[in-house]
Amino acid sequence: MNHLLARSVLKHVIAAGNCGGIHLSSSGAAASARVFDGDSVVKGHGSSMVLIAWRRMMSTAAESSSAAVEKKSSGAASEKAEKDDVIVSSYWGVSRPKITKEDGTEWPWNCFMPWEAYRADLSIDLGKHHVPKTFIDKVAYRTVKLLRIPTDVFFQRRYGCRAMMLETVAAVPGMVGGMLLHLRSLRKFQQSGGWIKALLEEAENERMHLMTMVELVQPKWYERLLVLTVQGVFFNAFFVLYLMSPKLAHRVVGYLEEEAVHSYTEYLKDIESGAIENVPAPAIAIDYWRLPKDATLKDVIIVIRADEAHHRDVNHFASDVHFQGKELREAAAPVGYH
Amino acid sequence: MNHLLARSVLKHVIAAGNCGGIHLSSSGAAASARVFDGDSVVKGHGSSMVLIAWRRMMSTAAESSSAAVEKKSSGAASEKAEKDDVIVSSYWGVSRPKITKEDGTEWPWNCFMPWEAYRADLSIDLGKHHVPKTFIDKVAYRTVKLLRIPTDVFFQRRYGCRAMMLETVAAVPGMVGGMLLHLRSLRKFQQSGGWIKALLEEAENERMHLMTMVELVQPKWYERLLVLTVQGVFFNAFFVLYLMSPKLAHRVVGYLEEEAVHSYTEYLKDIESGAIENVPAPAIAIDYWRLPKDATLKDVIIVIRADEAHHRDVNHFASDVHFQGKELREAAAPVGYH
Repeated sequence: MNHLLARSVLKHVIAAGNCGGIHLSSSGAAASARVFDGDSVVKGHGSSMVLIAWRRMMSTAAESSSAAVEKKSSGAASEKAEKDDVIVSSYWGVSRPKITKEDGTEWPWNCFMPWEAYRADLSIDLGKHHVPKTFIDKVAYRTVKLLRIPTDVFFQRRYGCRAMMLETVAAVPGMVGGMLLHLRSLRKFQQSGGWIKALLEEAENERMHLMTMVELVQPKWYERLLVLTVQGVFFNAFFVLYLMSPKLAHRVVGYLEEEAVHSYTEYLKDIESGAIENVPAPAIAIDYWRLPKDATLKDVIIVIRADEAHHRDVNHFASDVHFQGKELREAAAPVGYH
Repeated sequence: MNHLLARSVLKHVIAAGNCGGIHLSSSGAAASARVFDGDSVVKGHGSSMVLIAWRRMMSTAAESSSAAVEKKSSGAASEKAEKDDVIVSSYWGVSRPKITKEDGTEWPWNCFMPWEAYRADLSIDLGKHHVPKTFIDKVAYRTVKLLRIPTDVFFQRRYGCRAMMLETVAAVPGMVGGMLLHLRSLRKFQQSGGWIKALLEEAENERMHLMTMVELVQPKWYERLLVLTVQGVFFNAFFVLYLMSPKLAHRVVGYLEEEAVHSYTEYLKDIESGAIENVPAPAIAIDYWRLPKDATLKDVIIVIRADEAHHRDVNHFASDVHFQGKELREAAAPVGYH
């Protein structure tokens, strides 16, 4: 329950501390905004701070209506904030709440909120392996083992680069699966069992692995080109595979994750031996996995590996459900833990 | 901040009340499970209850490892719980935490959790309209107005049926947009600005509208066929559109949402006049929008309409960002409020 408690505490901090004024610092691209909120103009400063007053939720219906009437100008009415910063169309009143960390400093990330940060379960069994039994299992297993060969040849022991590039692939299956389940739920008017969310969570988690690795390892131009090509092929191939056999698709992902756990273990060995420098952990990783401020690359790889082990479990489980002739929605999905 | 406080309270309740034992009631398909958790066998009962012990998070590393060793059987090891209930492969230890409502009863839904329920902002301005100014705006506006014609002819004043079927369409753009932004973030190694989540949230919110309407209006076979066909066409068309011009895509969705607000207003008129019976609200709607227990269809349509108005704002905003020559990720996305 740790991560649920953590989410709860954070939400209390936010709810208690803020009643209208909001404050968001953007870590990456310059972003600043001026938004009319019906009460006052809140001005943005500088290139790394976004000050947005979010009063719409707090103001009375009457105030909001009158504010909306004032704002009712033609579509692209906007205020240019600072230099070349993003122009926000204040007309639409779309803004962000003030989010702060537990220590009161502003929350710097847009792609995840404090209540989405969590502590990984490091007690997860890293050695689990699904022994291939059926023909489909064997196809999945051998395909993954076959794909490992050129991968090993290309990366050798460059585990940082390997992690960075393979996370661009790992984040695809969850998104494809989630989307196809979403479309099915719509056209069949059926409940999802939580699986849409579970798979989209997996995709987002893998993307966060990528966002972390990219802070440490920058891709070269030919690596970017390779990523582009592989995405084009893999996205389409996995899309078709998931349509034809979600059982096989999930089994493949399960085995891919087993390989990922193995690769991250090798990565850790190289860090421990000194072959790879144990640099300080990037800020995004510290916030996302709720790591201590002095966390290092080693701590990051340990939690990433735990995530991959969990994805392994979820995907093998999903395949098992299919194997038993059931649809995913008939088994409650493991949502809320990456 | 109301919904944040609500989430926080709920999480406290859950965190305080439970330290291991979990209890999940599935509202739809029969589901029951027996899962070994390393400590004990927790048995499932009956066709509407799923009792799953989730101790993995709480147990020590040592206990978990030994439990995992015990569990290490070949892949498809499973326990058949009751009659034809879902077989859960206990090997993978993938299970659900115990979730209860504020009143202590079990949480019946898999596709959303108590902290994802919220109160809609009913002060939102329903009358906002983006006046078409550029050529792209006009293409978007006229396309939507044109599409309204056959829609009105088909549905007449059957607003329940209209809502049910059009939500199957409305839930597509957010998913397509979210997925394409996700893929772009991966291949370009770039932050998303929170927009992937914002769009996926929109898609899920529309899907919840559908799950609600389906409790009230059941589709006939030819309506299902129509939904199938429309999904096939619209998904592909919107996919291509979003690739070619996200600016136009978001503008189209903004105008579609404006039409949705208008249709729901007409729906409300028919409910108020008695032309459509004001039935009690479905349980899923009461839990999702945190409505009072005696809520009616009218309350549900009011909150759905407020959601559509918010989607209108988000999509017009997104189009404005593109219009100003920026990418979405340069403007913080409005995440966390549907």
